[in-house]
Formats: sequence, C-alpha cells, structure tokens
Amino acid sequence: MLLNCDLGESFGSWTMGMDAQVMPHIDQANIACGFHAGDPLTIDRTLALAARHGVSVGAHPAYPDLAGFGRRSMALSEDELASSLRYQIAALDGMARCHGLELAYVKPHGALYNDMMADAAVRAGVMAAVSGYHRSVALMLQATPTADSHLAEAAALDLPLLFEAFADRCYDDEGRLLSRRKPGAVHDRERMLAQVRQLCTDNSITTVSGARLQLRVDTLCVHGDNPEGVAAIEAVRALVNGN
Amino acid sequence: MLLNCDLGESFGSWTMGMDAQVMPHIDQANIACGFHAGDPLTIDRTLALAARHGVSVGAHPAYPDLAGFGRRSMALSEDELASSLRYQIAALDGMARCHGLELAYVKPHGALYNDMMADAAVRAGVMAAVSGYHRSVALMLQATPTADSHLAEAAALDLPLLFEAFADRCYDDEGRLLSRRKPGAVHDRERMLAQVRQLCTDNSITTVSGARLQLRVDTLCVHGDNPEGVAAIEAVRALVNGN
Amino acid sequence: MLLNCDLGESFGSWTMGMDAQVMPHIDQANIACGFHAGDPLTIDRTLALAARHGVSVGAHPAYPDLAGFGRRSMALSEDELASSLRYQIAALDGMARCHGLELAYVKPHGALYNDMMADAAVRAGVMAAVSGYHRSVALMLQATPTADSHLAEAAALDLPLLFEAFADRCYDDEGRLLSRRKPGAVHDRERMLAQVRQLCTDNSITTVSGARLQLRVDTLCVHGDNPEGVAAIEAVRALVNGN
Amino acid sequence: MLLNCDLGESFGSWTMGMDAQVMPHIDQANIACGFHAGDPLTIDRTLALAARHGVSVGAHPAYPDLAGFGRRSMALSEDELASSLRYQIAALDGMARCHGLELAYVKPHGALYNDMMADAAVRAGVMAAVSGYHRSVALMLQATPTADSHLAEAAALDLPLLFEAFADRCYDDEGRLLSRRKPGAVHDRERMLAQVRQLCTDNSITTVSGARLQLRVDTLCVHGDNPEGVAAIEAVRALVNGN
Repeated sequence: MLLNCDLGESFGSWTMGMDAQVMPHIDQANIACGFHAGDPLTIDRTLALAARHGVSVGAHPAYPDLAGFGRRSMALSEDELASSLRYQIAALDGMARCHGLELAYVKPHGALYNDMMADAAVRAGVMAAVSGYHRSVALMLQATPTADSHLAEAAALDLPLLFEAFADRCYDDEGRLLSRRKPGAVHDRERMLAQVRQLCTDNSITTVSGARLQLRVDTLCVHGDNPEGVAAIEAVRALVNGN
Repeated sequence: MLLNCDLGESFGSWTMGMDAQVMPHIDQANIACGFHAGDPLTIDRTLALAARHGVSVGAHPAYPDLAGFGRRSMALSEDELASSLRYQIAALDGMARCHGLELAYVKPHGALYNDMMADAAVRAGVMAAVSGYHRSVALMLQATPTADSHLAEAAALDLPLLFEAFADRCYDDEGRLLSRRKPGAVHDRERMLAQVRQLCTDNSITTVSGARLQLRVDTLCVHGDNPEGVAAIEAVRALVNGN
Repeated sequence: MLLNCDLGESFGSWTMGMDAQVMPHIDQANIACGFHAGDPLTIDRTLALAARHGVSVGAHPAYPDLAGFGRRSMALSEDELASSLRYQIAALDGMARCHGLELAYVKPHGALYNDMMADAAVRAGVMAAVSGYHRSVALMLQATPTADSHLAEAAALDLPLLFEAFADRCYDDEGRLLSRRKPGAVHDRERMLAQVRQLCTDNSITTVSGARLQLRVDTLCVHGDNPEGVAAIEAVRALVNGN
Repeated sequence: MLLNCDLGESFGSWTMGMDAQVMPHIDQANIACGFHAGDPLTIDRTLALAARHGVSVGAHPAYPDLAGFGRRSMALSEDELASSLRYQIAALDGMARCHGLELAYVKPHGALYNDMMADAAVRAGVMAAVSGYHRSVALMLQATPTADSHLAEAAALDLPLLFEAFADRCYDDEGRLLSRRKPGAVHDRERMLAQVRQLCTDNSITTVSGARLQLRVDTLCVHGDNPEGVAAIEAVRALVNGN
C-alpha cells in the first residue's frame, strides 16, 4: 500500500501545504502543473524535494482556474481537455527529467477529478488524453465498486490505472465519499487508522451504514495542509510500514 | 540557409498569423508556449501542422504576459526565469513528441529576446536554463558581430547556438536592427531579396550607411502575419532554394 | 427598437470585431470587462469610441476564462458569481465615467448568458448581483415567451430589464434560438430584415415551423465581426430608422 | 498621524495577511485590486471588513503579475499604465460603494510603487492616471526629502497627495529605505516605537548614520502578515492614540 499526497500547491508568494514536512513520509507526490496552482518555480522546488526523498512524481493537472483553485467544473470541449492535459503532463514530465525523475502517473485535480469519476464522457476524454501521451504513464483514479468497468475502459487504450482510497474519509454504501457537509464525513485519527488497517488487511472498508465494501486499492490519499495532517500522515506511514 | 517563423501565436478565440499558409514554406517553426500566446489547443494544432509539413519545431518561450504579448520587459529573478523557461520548453517538448516531433531548439520571444541580446545577465540566465534542460536543444539568437563571444559563453555550457538574421530589416553599422521608427527600417520586397541574396552568397549584409558587415547566419527570420508577408516568404523561399 | 452589439472583445495584441465600423450604427455597446476579453487599454479605447458616437454603454461581464472566451460554463458559487459581476460592472462603470459616460445596463456574456437563461438559480444570482450594485443599472436578457416571469423576478428586486432579440437567428416554437448546428439557424440578409420588420411592426417573429410568436423586445442584438456583418448592421439600421 | 496597511492580498484559496486582526487597529486599508492579488470575492470581504470597522479604503493597484505578486518591474507603455490603473481604481471604487464606502486614495503596490518613486516618467504616468479619474482621489506615496517637488508635480494636476513613512524600516541619509539585505534595515519593536514617537513629535526620523531628517508624513505604513506584526500594530496604535 502506497501513500500519495497533493503537493506543490503554492503559487508565487502564496504558500499552501507543508510540503517539506510531508515529502519524507509519502511514496507518490501529485504535483500541481500551473493551472490551478504551481507556478514554474514552485514546481521546480517541489520536484527537487521529491528527488531528495526518492518520491515518485505524478502530474496533478486541473481545469485552467487559478482563482477557483480548479474546484469549479468547466465545460471544456474534448479537444480543449485533451490538449490542456497534455500541456500540463508535458510540462511536469520535462521538468521532472531535469531533476533526474521520471513522471510516473497522472492524477486529475479537484473538479476535473470529480467530473472524471461522475461523467463517463469526461473520463473517456481524460483516458484518451493520458493514453495518447507519447510514453506510457498511469492514470490514478478513485477506488470504487465500479473499478472493473474502469479497468475495461482503460485496457482498450493500453492505459495502466492506479486506484486510490482516502484514508480519512467515510464512504457510503455505494463506495462514494460521504459529503463533507454530513456528520462523520471525515474520520478522526482512530477511525482513519482503523480504515487504513482494514484496507491493508483485506482490501475492504466499513461504510457509514456499517456495511463491508470490497475495494481494489493501490494507494492511499493523505493530506498535509497543517501540522495535524502531517502528524496523521506519520501515523499512517508507521501503520503501513508495520504491515 | 534555413527559414524560421514565429507561429502558433493565436490564443483561444483570437487568431493571429497565417500559419497554414506559412508552414509549407519554412524550415523551422518557433511555437508560442502559452505565456505570451498559444493556448494548449493552439499549440496542438500548430504542432500537427508542423508535422504534416516536416518542419522542425522550436519552443518560443516568453515572459508571462498575455495582455502585453510578451513585449514588455519583466524583472524576473534568475530562478524565476530558469524555471519559467524550463516549464515552457518542457510543455512544447512533450506535446511535440505526441506528434512524432522532437523539439530542436529554443528561441526566446519579444522582450525576453531583446533583453537576452542586450543584457549579459539575462543571456547567462537563458543559456543556463536551456543548457540545463535534460537533453540537448539549441538556443537561437540574433546574428551580430559579437557572435564569437556568444559562442564562447555557450561553449562553456555545451550549448549549441543557432544564429538568425532578419530578412526584411535594415541593420545599422553595429549590426543592430534599425529602430522601426526610423525611415528605411523595414525593407521593401526588392531590398529584402537583395539582403537575402547577399547573406546566402557571402554571409554579409549592407548596413544603413552602405557599409558591409560580415555575419554568421544559420537561419533567416520571416514574418507571416498577412498575405503580403506570406508572399514575401514564398519569394525568399524560392530565392534560397535556387529558383 | 434599439440596436446592441458586443464590442471591445480584442485583447492586447489580438484584434476581434470591427468596432470602429460598427459603433456609428448602433445604440448600445456591450463592452467586455476583462474576464473573457477586453484588457484595460481595449476597454478605454472602446469607451472613447462610444463617447464619440453618443452610444449608450453596458457592461458585458463573463466567467473568468480568457482561453475559452467565456464560452465554457463554470460552476461558480453564488458569492463568487456576485463579486465577479460587481467587479466587472464597477470597472466598466468607473472607466466609463472617465469618458463622461454613464453605464446604463449589464448584459452577461457567452456561457454566463446561456446559464442565466436556462438556470433559475444562476439567473437569481445575476439579478441579485446587478440589483445590489450601488446604483440602478438595467439587466439585458433574452426576449422569450417567459418574459413575464422574468419581469416578476426582477420587480421583486427593483431591477429594470431590457429584452433583446437576435436579428439574424431563427427561433423555434418555444422561443429559443435554433442551434447553430441546424440548417436555417442563421438567417440570410433577406430573412433577417423580414424578422426585424415583423418585430418592429407587431412585436412578433415567425418561428422555424412557421408559427407566429409574440415577443416583448426592447433591443436587437447585431454582430459586427466582419465586413458582411457590418453591412448587415447598416441594413438593419436603415430599416429600423425608417419605421 | 494615521496608520495604513496593505490588505486583501489573499487570492482564491490562498490566504495572506491577518486582515481580521489588523483592521480594528488601522485608519486606512490599501486593498489589492486583482492584478497582483485580490480576487473579486476577497475584495468584497475586505471591503465588508473595512466598513464594519469604519476604516478608510484605498485602491492598491499593481502591475498585472499574479505569479510575481506585483513585485517585478514591467515596462508598460504610458497608455497601458494609465488604463490599467483606472481599471483597478474603478473596480475598487464601485465595489466600495456597494458597501457604503467611498474610495479615498490610491497607493501603488510593489514594483509599481518603487518605480513611481525612482522614475519621474512612471510617477508622471501614475499621477496623470489618478488625477484623470472622474472624481478626486488622493495619491499616497513615500515621504522623502523631495516631497516638495512631488507636491509641485501633483499641484499642476490638482492631485491631492498623502505621504507615508514606514514605521519599522531604517532610513539612510537621503531618506531612502535601507535595503532589507543590510543589517539594521528592519527595526526591532523598541526602535520602531522610537521612530514613530519621533515622527509624531516633530516630523523627523533618525537615519542609519544618526543624522536627523525632517519628513512630511501623513500616515504610517504598518504590516500585519503574522501575529508579531499584529502585535506591533497594536503597539503603534496605542502610541499614536496617546499623542
């Protein structure tokens, strides 16, 4: 079980995330590509940090929306989406190589991630764009009960997939994240660790209703925006290492 | 003698340049990278056009200034300049490979080009950024009487250089372009062809004062913004081809 | 019957629209505010042109999307939409006063216009934002058979409305514009003038099926992107003047 | 003696400054206008906060450079500078009125502020742009020994000026701020309060060499980026109130 985290989300003079504290504890850094966050200098510094800690890097592309931090859905045409993704992937890929790193995967950000999971047309567009990149990189998406159909879609394009689960989020019975507006949507430390332990043990989670849901999970998404988040990451790291 | 042209300078719904008319006649396309022009879809289409015509592609990076079209000097720090250049080069490089093309060179745009020629510190920054890219690409700069010192600067970094002259611009005795505000700054068709002929014959130009100036020139910059420009390119092409 | 046109849609070095040719023939200029088009200098020049021709000016605000020209829907929150609209309205308002003009109305652009017509929540957000501006300006929206309910919505906010019809577009029986992808969606000159004549005579149009549809119309939207468009505007102007 | 502070410098999801903590203690809020910081929603919230605390508001316009936070000089033409300033002033002016506030002054930000102080042509451009706004607003600039010539320049344009000194910065004998790279450039608490006391007492400061320099000062610039800065503001406030 790997740990991934969204990093490099500062922009110019604005700082976000405790990247230097998080990087030593994770396996995969999802690095913002300049469209929702991540000016070139921030990207460069984040890649240098990843290289220092031997962390695998992925592109974290988004809708072109700095003011909205990529959290607002945008109705891009298929062509616009494909070229926007390739631009962002290419920028990260080439900059990563300057640090001796090889871009390993792509994880869409924010509204683009949500749209990809909810809308088959957007997902088809994302898969086509990533699989059409000039060399093979994986696509990271959310582990859900419909992983098999996602795998089938990807196999038709020779596109490797990585499935991620969220360490600290409560799931409903359909395998969706409970809305943050609902009570119990975000686990406390104890429940988070229990969820991670269960995932590592038998690839299952316990949903909000108490049901047991089987999930195919390659990597756990963790969050390092504040000292508590960093401490939680360290706890998850220790737990995963112990397995 | 090669012909190069700035292309891909549309942005979203705004069109600039007659790229489809120009591409068949040139050898090198300097493609805008998104900072002064060139949204991802425009880049993609320009690369497709270059691939169709077997044209070599270069990145045409700029200061981050869409409203100013990269024509306004900006006081970037060395780090900011280096990372901004690598971001743009990488974006073009990866997108070019998706079209089976290999990025061959980098030609800075607008104010960045002028600052590079006029200011040794900016030039050092550009050279360091381009030579630090993960694989070798050439830097295109202006052919001047100080080419030897530029070659020495580049040799220290193992950076290949390409020197360009301007087909339609009148030079002063120091080998600088005559300001566009001065009479005779832009050649008519006949004088342009004479300048090209002289460059192809013995690597020299005749300056505004009538003096003869030796220039090391690898490629000629031509402009295709309007039908006259395209016709001029065709005439230069025919001349260079020996027709 | 007034004539309105979208103007000031250039951006920096990119030119769009034949503003100087159009301005003499229209009554109302919808001026881009910088979010989909219209850098500050373009706004200034467009306002100067409007002042010279005694044309009434309106703000033409949009989603923040230069690369998409405001034509892509964006999921802004109610707060984001309200503040984005007021920012754009205020910018135009203050700049207009520097030219001795008084901003008279607001006409949303592109995807925001379409969303406002199709989605009651977006329309409520737009109406609240415009009516909450510190002085009264009208909102321009599309003339449809549901104008009465739009008037009721606006009356509750003391918001004056202006209804526009499209001179050159064919309507379906529900009073919507026929999709541009359908044959006959855009009228030729003769049909356009017939539609204008009918609107001026008895406030009705003939739909694609031949039905007669009553519309409350204050102003006609005309387009001046090219010489044909300008000629069409002159023809509509002459027709309207003759009534 | 008034206190002014740069506020509203967040952008979208990125937070900067402790605006809510600072606002109760200052007299004048310099509010970012969207070009270096300050998306529309941030502007709206900052204005609401100013209104709640009865703080006078000024526009804090900048070069169009989000990634550089307006700290990089840009070579704008006179027309571009004038229209960019009016756009930003107008946006703040109209949004302020929606909160029952009246924009009182303009204080250029970052590199534009420095260029205005160092370069007479930039200063002339700024003064022309501000004085050409449709109603009278003051221009805030740095208190220096050359205030008389600045007053003369402004008087020719009927432009009111406000002079600011920096509470926590050490001055050289020419009345310039000591570079932050030099030791002693930023005062500790005790020296800061001594400088404020001296300014309030007899309009003078003690320079780095120990010389006494007379300055015409209307307002003191204070900084509230962190808890220490806020505590310093409270101390200055108490000192100024006690005089």
